[in-house]
Amino acid sequence: MGISPLNCGWGICVFLSLCLISFTPPCDGGNILVYPVDGSHWINMKVLIEELHARGHNITVIRASTSLYIKEKSPLYKSITIELDKKVEPFFIQYLQKHIKAQVEGASAFTFFKITLGFVSAFSQLHLLMCDYLAQTLDDPTMVKSLRDSQFDLVLTDPAIAPGVILAKYLELPLVFNVRWITGGEGHFAIAPSPLSYIPVPRSGLTDKMNFIERVRNVFFYSIALLQQRLIGPHYDAICEKYIEGGCDIISLLQEADIWLFRSDFVFDFPRPTMPNIVYIGGFQCKPAQPLPVELEDFVQGAGEHGVIIMTLGTLVYDLPKEVSDAIASVFAKMPQKVIWRYKGKRPSTLGNNTLLVDWMPQKDLLGHPLTKVFVAHGGTNGVQEAIYYGVPVLGIPLFFDQYDNLLRLQQRGAGKILHLSEISQCFEQSLMEVLHQDSYRQNMQRLSDLHRDQPVAPMDQAVFWVEYVMRHKGAAHLRTEAYKMPWYSYYCLDVVLLLLAAVTLLLLSTVTMFRFLCYRCLRKPKAKQH
Amino acid sequence: MGISPLNCGWGICVFLSLCLISFTPPCDGGNILVYPVDGSHWINMKVLIEELHARGHNITVIRASTSLYIKEKSPLYKSITIELDKKVEPFFIQYLQKHIKAQVEGASAFTFFKITLGFVSAFSQLHLLMCDYLAQTLDDPTMVKSLRDSQFDLVLTDPAIAPGVILAKYLELPLVFNVRWITGGEGHFAIAPSPLSYIPVPRSGLTDKMNFIERVRNVFFYSIALLQQRLIGPHYDAICEKYIEGGCDIISLLQEADIWLFRSDFVFDFPRPTMPNIVYIGGFQCKPAQPLPVELEDFVQGAGEHGVIIMTLGTLVYDLPKEVSDAIASVFAKMPQKVIWRYKGKRPSTLGNNTLLVDWMPQKDLLGHPLTKVFVAHGGTNGVQEAIYYGVPVLGIPLFFDQYDNLLRLQQRGAGKILHLSEISQCFEQSLMEVLHQDSYRQNMQRLSDLHRDQPVAPMDQAVFWVEYVMRHKGAAHLRTEAYKMPWYSYYCLDVVLLLLAAVTLLLLSTVTMFRFLCYRCLRKPKAKQH
Repeated sequence: MGISPLNCGWGICVFLSLCLISFTPPCDGGNILVYPVDGSHWINMKVLIEELHARGHNITVIRASTSLYIKEKSPLYKSITIELDKKVEPFFIQYLQKHIKAQVEGASAFTFFKITLGFVSAFSQLHLLMCDYLAQTLDDPTMVKSLRDSQFDLVLTDPAIAPGVILAKYLELPLVFNVRWITGGEGHFAIAPSPLSYIPVPRSGLTDKMNFIERVRNVFFYSIALLQQRLIGPHYDAICEKYIEGGCDIISLLQEADIWLFRSDFVFDFPRPTMPNIVYIGGFQCKPAQPLPVELEDFVQGAGEHGVIIMTLGTLVYDLPKEVSDAIASVFAKMPQKVIWRYKGKRPSTLGNNTLLVDWMPQKDLLGHPLTKVFVAHGGTNGVQEAIYYGVPVLGIPLFFDQYDNLLRLQQRGAGKILHLSEISQCFEQSLMEVLHQDSYRQNMQRLSDLHRDQPVAPMDQAVFWVEYVMRHKGAAHLRTEAYKMPWYSYYCLDVVLLLLAAVTLLLLSTVTMFRFLCYRCLRKPKAKQH
Repeated sequence: MGISPLNCGWGICVFLSLCLISFTPPCDGGNILVYPVDGSHWINMKVLIEELHARGHNITVIRASTSLYIKEKSPLYKSITIELDKKVEPFFIQYLQKHIKAQVEGASAFTFFKITLGFVSAFSQLHLLMCDYLAQTLDDPTMVKSLRDSQFDLVLTDPAIAPGVILAKYLELPLVFNVRWITGGEGHFAIAPSPLSYIPVPRSGLTDKMNFIERVRNVFFYSIALLQQRLIGPHYDAICEKYIEGGCDIISLLQEADIWLFRSDFVFDFPRPTMPNIVYIGGFQCKPAQPLPVELEDFVQGAGEHGVIIMTLGTLVYDLPKEVSDAIASVFAKMPQKVIWRYKGKRPSTLGNNTLLVDWMPQKDLLGHPLTKVFVAHGGTNGVQEAIYYGVPVLGIPLFFDQYDNLLRLQQRGAGKILHLSEISQCFEQSLMEVLHQDSYRQNMQRLSDLHRDQPVAPMDQAVFWVEYVMRHKGAAHLRTEAYKMPWYSYYCLDVVLLLLAAVTLLLLSTVTMFRFLCYRCLRKPKAKQH
């Protein structure tokens, strides 16, 4: 039979998106309070805000006075500014630079451990700082009155840094997450059963197919994640204790959220148990590519049939060590392709004429360009999902965070290849040639793209639908399990197991006692007779 | 804010359904092999077949020569008939009549136990019979050749009775379930993690809120379900062993299915962990009500503002004991409402003029009629889901199977009331008055109806989308976890736990040995000196 995914699935998806867009305006605008996380997380939240704004909802964003990303004035939202005296970004950048240097130098495990420990401690301080500022907000009667008077319909937040979760509880408002990470781990681990036998813990570098040793490692990494949760959780719990009537803890509050708009899906991630209130919106930022600016289009067309390679290592990496950038540039210089490289560092001395260095590039439109052959990327979630959407194979150079995990998912499906920073000088050329010329990479990526695009409703429409759903029904409590209300020993039925064990033990003991008593009687009587 | 569910959510749902219907014809027709379960399960399968046929797919149904429900000739499908020499229905009816009699007589627990045991044994025989007929099919080279030559795109089956599952594996075809039950229990228990602390085992009569004693009961009921699985599983495993290369077992085959179209949702059922390849299609048979036949409409209109009560106890119950039917009829006779009662038994002597006895009624159209006030029903899944869809409160008289569980879900949400068969003579009137006149029942049912209708895609469109998805992509392996490939001790990481316990024990033993050795040395030397 001849059903083609492009004829039908993708068609339905686009068509339904158009239907939803054309149908939603009759809904009155809702009133949404957004408590975002700064930095790259804001990019995701902003995409959703743009869509919600376009569909007639009123958005209010709480931002820090020192934020570099979240502007005070925007046509999309009103803002509430909380005065901060510290910037968050520098400490991140400092850590990232140290990490990159250690990777290039092939530093010892101990060096990485020290850097990671420093980061975890700094990250914990960041959470503490954000909790302090929430407390400052809640201690301000004018601010609290203003928030209450605004009669918001819901709080939309990214719980990676979680004051928004507590604020929603404080204001007694329904709660929607735009989420991938939570304080101390990956979001699923807080809400859905996660058997460690086939669900790799983030940053473990494992897949869903684990042998015995790998499962031992996975359990070890899970313990580390729990420790991290133990480190960060108390900052939030203290605020809950102080401001929420009856007290509570941050894990329960996370589990109480009405809807989890999860920035992932099962084309990108390994399949796993999920929950009725988790909605997968992976790739929700992707749209059909727009035409490139004329100069860029001319440059791309100059490549002819050889096509274009594009490279970026994300928003947070401004610079690379000279030996690395020179090695990359010299490989690019040899290629017949044109190269567009987003790089803010010093111009490499080996840069070829075919390579265009840019401060910023229209990444999605370039990925969607028919001449683009390979995406050299660090493996940030957004970039990987965009590569899937547009079907461009990836040569991944993971730097930190979840980037290795993300790229591993592509490599596992034959749609990408991972190259470590320390291998650049030896293997960059060979790896690039492999991803460029081995057809399987493009075919596998195209398969992922077909699967990703073949959904009954486009991810962004899902996201908007469920935000509006929570507004219409004032929450979605019926999609939330009873699990989060139970103590852990009840959840795992340990009390029942103990009871059954006790019953079995009692039965065994009674049997043994009875048996011994009978034996004693049987053996004793003959003796009495003998007397 | 003023978003109304009826303005928006339901509108979107209807609109998207129309869009899907109008958009799908460009897909070429697929070639679907259906292996249905007879009886009431066929009703569900037929609804889906009608829709798939309407969307241009070719359907082939495998049926038994003795089937009462699945006709050989149909404009919807071609049929393949397997010659059977036994009818399945009589043994069901016999059990059901015994069960009803025992309920009315308020029989002892032992009587119920005996009836249930007889039923389980007969049910096991039924599975064995079906396995034999599959073997007969697979031993017929002409039949096998014909099945292979037909080049089906997938097998669609209801795994409540599971030969279709084995046939799909034998023919190496993708597999889609239209499912609620599997051999030996509820579908979810075979594929999704199901913590017994808040997921009630079917027929336990428990909800998702359980105290300690109830959790003990739940674990007990789960053990019974496992025993039942142990009883039935081997019939299938023997067939797998004989016909599937490399052998396998039925539980693994169930877990290998590509998509589970699950006849439930979380408006009807308690929320619980789910899986990426489970698609909830609860209420997929519901459509906006059609006008009633003129005579019936006249009868209904005759009720005026008092409205109508409708009653049915399902397709399997032909008759009720005289005292029960008389008691019901006499209560109906006193009411100002009109009553439409689907009843094939002897005409009750107490029947009032306001009560119309019918052999069959257009149940969905009556439930969707604005004058319908209460639905007196046995609590079959279809009826309950239709009551939710049309927002009609239910007075439930559960008879057997999952009917009590279904009605419990309504009662728990204040949208229905359960009345046992043994309580009819004392409490029927009072209960009926309560559900008729207490506003909360209607309001709560309306809330469930609003939630059920507010979905991004209508359940039937979801069902068709995912059937076509499996055809487009030749399966949906990427939505299936690795869980089913693991031995149980690996799945639960018991081997890892054992290793860790061994390591801890070894460490403790070494420490104790070391400590004893040191103590020995420390205590010994002074003695030596004393010498």
